[in-house]
Order: sequence, then structure tokens, then C-alpha cells
Amino acid sequence: MSAEFPASDSLPVAGTAYGLGIGPGEPDLITLKAYNILQKADVIAYPALEDGVSLARQIVDPHIPEGRIEIAIRIEMGKPADPIYDAAAIEIGKHLADGKTVAVLCEGDPFFYGSFMYLFGRLAEAGHPVKTVPGVSSMMACAAQLGAPLAAKNDVLQVIPGPLDADRLREQLAKTDAAAIIKLGRHFAKVRGVINELGLTDRARYIERATLETQKMVPLGDLPADAKAPYFSMILIHRRGDAWR
Amino acid sequence: MSAEFPASDSLPVAGTAYGLGIGPGEPDLITLKAYNILQKADVIAYPALEDGVSLARQIVDPHIPEGRIEIAIRIEMGKPADPIYDAAAIEIGKHLADGKTVAVLCEGDPFFYGSFMYLFGRLAEAGHPVKTVPGVSSMMACAAQLGAPLAAKNDVLQVIPGPLDADRLREQLAKTDAAAIIKLGRHFAKVRGVINELGLTDRARYIERATLETQKMVPLGDLPADAKAPYFSMILIHRRGDAWR
Repeated sequence: MSAEFPASDSLPVAGTAYGLGIGPGEPDLITLKAYNILQKADVIAYPALEDGVSLARQIVDPHIPEGRIEIAIRIEMGKPADPIYDAAAIEIGKHLADGKTVAVLCEGDPFFYGSFMYLFGRLAEAGHPVKTVPGVSSMMACAAQLGAPLAAKNDVLQVIPGPLDADRLREQLAKTDAAAIIKLGRHFAKVRGVINELGLTDRARYIERATLETQKMVPLGDLPADAKAPYFSMILIHRRGDAWR
Repeated sequence: MSAEFPASDSLPVAGTAYGLGIGPGEPDLITLKAYNILQKADVIAYPALEDGVSLARQIVDPHIPEGRIEIAIRIEMGKPADPIYDAAAIEIGKHLADGKTVAVLCEGDPFFYGSFMYLFGRLAEAGHPVKTVPGVSSMMACAAQLGAPLAAKNDVLQVIPGPLDADRLREQLAKTDAAAIIKLGRHFAKVRGVINELGLTDRARYIERATLETQKMVPLGDLPADAKAPYFSMILIHRRGDAWR
């Protein structure tokens, strides 16, 4: 099944790199703009694990035309990432100098805790035109799936990474109306402990792999004490329970 | 000019209300999913001013098929909004009960300080199926336009409404790595004062009407002292200057 839509001014410009926000996981949560650029780009680059597996590549698989040059930027766990981004920026830069357009796939939004900014800095400093196409971030997708508005009125909303130590977590959560706690992974038990201490467990909603087929969501208090959380999981908290009240 | 794209599973379900995130202003920053639902919806509802003017309606004007039933939800400044949302929820509810699908247009993302949540609460409590389609929020679009990544690594990012009093603004800004200050309007001078006091002016970027033709962006320190800011404006601050450093 297909439909027509206007391509408007989204055609890529020769010699430009585009950081494309491709959304949280569901392929049709990409924007028309990113979709249009993806159709026309000469080169497609994306972050990947050591073995080449790339969540970003998987998300937009239905949208990638055949015959594109592809660059997998393989990040090795536990090794410094700077030399990898240096090499990727040089490789992408050669294509740009040849007048090619390069689309860099970015899960969610490129500038919301995204690794694209490391390429952005390098390419911009080397004098290449770089544009960022914003995307639907996982935070917005988690809120939509949970039916839990993030913030309203004059609420302060904090985005808090789970790896922070318990004291800092406590301090930030004490000074906010609403929070999204990200990067849970092995920090999950510590984060739950702090939320519990602050009496916020009944205001906390847990979600993992939002919008993907493997999505799971549950009130935080309903999870077993020894529950594990993957890296792509999030807790949303609103002090009023529902932001609109 | 047009292109083909897959409609996937985004066709609307009879009797369902959809809160559609339509993005920050540029029409092609709508997602494929929201675009698909918009094409098929029987009824389109949107917030509007007293005189009927609606930014949401203007943003997606190129995408709205002819012959749709349209509902303008007119919010009157200085009057209580609850009775207006009550009436709108009843009107939308009648269409839903008739098996029609209703798309509610939401600037940016519906659950990020969006008025859609007031309808969401009422429709859900009345037993109607309501789904939220996340969108590109103005915060992500401002960062993309400014070339200023919001946050990286273990940064805490705060979204802070300008109407908060100066003490609260100071307290929140002191305890964060990065901030987006929203709803500036008539609070602009106070917000600038606090940023200046904290020595953050050279880290602050100002942008209004991101992605629209009337967009304006400038380092905060370059604005004249008596500059005015419209409601749809934002200041982004990162303590490191550039998030990726």
C-alpha cells in the first residue's frame, strides 16, 4: 500500500551531510523530510555494534532504496570512540568533497543524547555543510505509548541519566515536577531505590523498547524487585500523577 | 513533486481519536504516521484563537484533504478553558460514537506542554479510544536549527518555563548541565537577568519561530537589552558550550 505526499523543499543539496532523526523505532515515525532525504542520499551512514548490527539501520530498513553506498560506524565497547569518529568523519568527508550527499541515521532525535553530535562537530569544523533534521525522540514516544503526558503549564521537566550517583539522582528528583530517567540498564536497582525513598513509586511508569514489537510497559511498582532493565528503557514520573490535573 | 511511501499500519481505526504531533512548523516535519492518519481521518480538530486563526491548522494546510469536517477549538484569552475543552470533548465524542475517526492537530509533540492532554483526559475518561502519535517537539527543532545539541553523556537537561519566578529560575539553572527555557514572551527580561547573574549568557542561544519562514536566531548576548520575545521562542543553554565536548 502506498500514498502520495509532497516532497517540498527536502531534496538534499550536493556535498551536504544530513543527520537524520529517524524516530524511536516504528518505521513510520520518521518525518516526511527525513524520508525524502533518505530516498535521494548517495551515501547512508549509521552507528553499529562491533559485529555490524545496527538498530538505526534496522528501523529504516523498509525505507532504504537499493544500491546505496553504506557506511557502518562500528563502535567497540570499552575502547575509546574518538579515533572511530575521526575515521568516520574523514570517510564521510571524502564523499562530501566528491559532491555526494550523505545521510547519517540517528535513532530518535540526533541532538538529544545522540552520538551524531560527535560527527557533527568534526564535519562542521572541517568546513563541510552539515544539517540536522530533528526527529521524534524516545522520550516523546514513551510518553505517547504510556498515555502519560510529560509536562504541562509551568512544570519543570528534567531528563536525568540513570548512571548518576544516588545523591545526585535524589537531589535532581527532589527539585522537579516531572522527570524522564534514561539509560537505566545496570543502574536500574539504584534508580528504583531513590524513587522509592522519595515516595514517587506510585507516580512512576516504566517502559522499554517503545514502539517496537518487543515493547513492554508497566507501572514501576508492579515490577518484581529483581527486574532487569535494558539500555533502551525509561521511567517517566509526574508529581501530580497526570500532568493535566 | 511527489513520492511514494508505505502506509504500513497507520490507517486509523473507526471510532478512535488521534492526537497527532504535527511538528514545530515546517510542514514536512510531520511523521509518515501522522500524515497517513490525517489523510484518512473523517474529522479534523485543532486549537484556534478567538478569531479562528490556528497555527496548527496552518502548519498542515498543504496536507489536509478537501471535504473534511473541521472543528476549531477556540480558546479565549483570560477565560477559563475547562468549559471549552468540556464542550470540545462532547462534540468529538459524538463523532467517535458514530464510528468516525477524529484527528486532533497538536503543534510539536502532543504530550510536551501541549493542550491536547486536556482532551486526552476527558475523552479517555469518557471511555473513548484515544491514541497519541508523538511528534517532533519545538525543543528538538530549535536545537537542530541552532546547531546546538541539547545534551550528551550523563548531562541533566532541564526544561524550564519562563513564567517561574526569578528565585526558582536561578535554583533550577544552578543545578543543571543543560537547559531549554520555554514560554519566554513577557518573561524574557527576567529570564535574561537570571542567565546573566549566573554567568551563562555566553552559553545561551536564542531562537524564535523555529523552522518557519519568520525564524530568527542569535546568540543571547547579541540581542539588544530591550529586545522582545514572542511566546514561540526559546533559549538553549549548555554549560560546556557545546554538548559534545
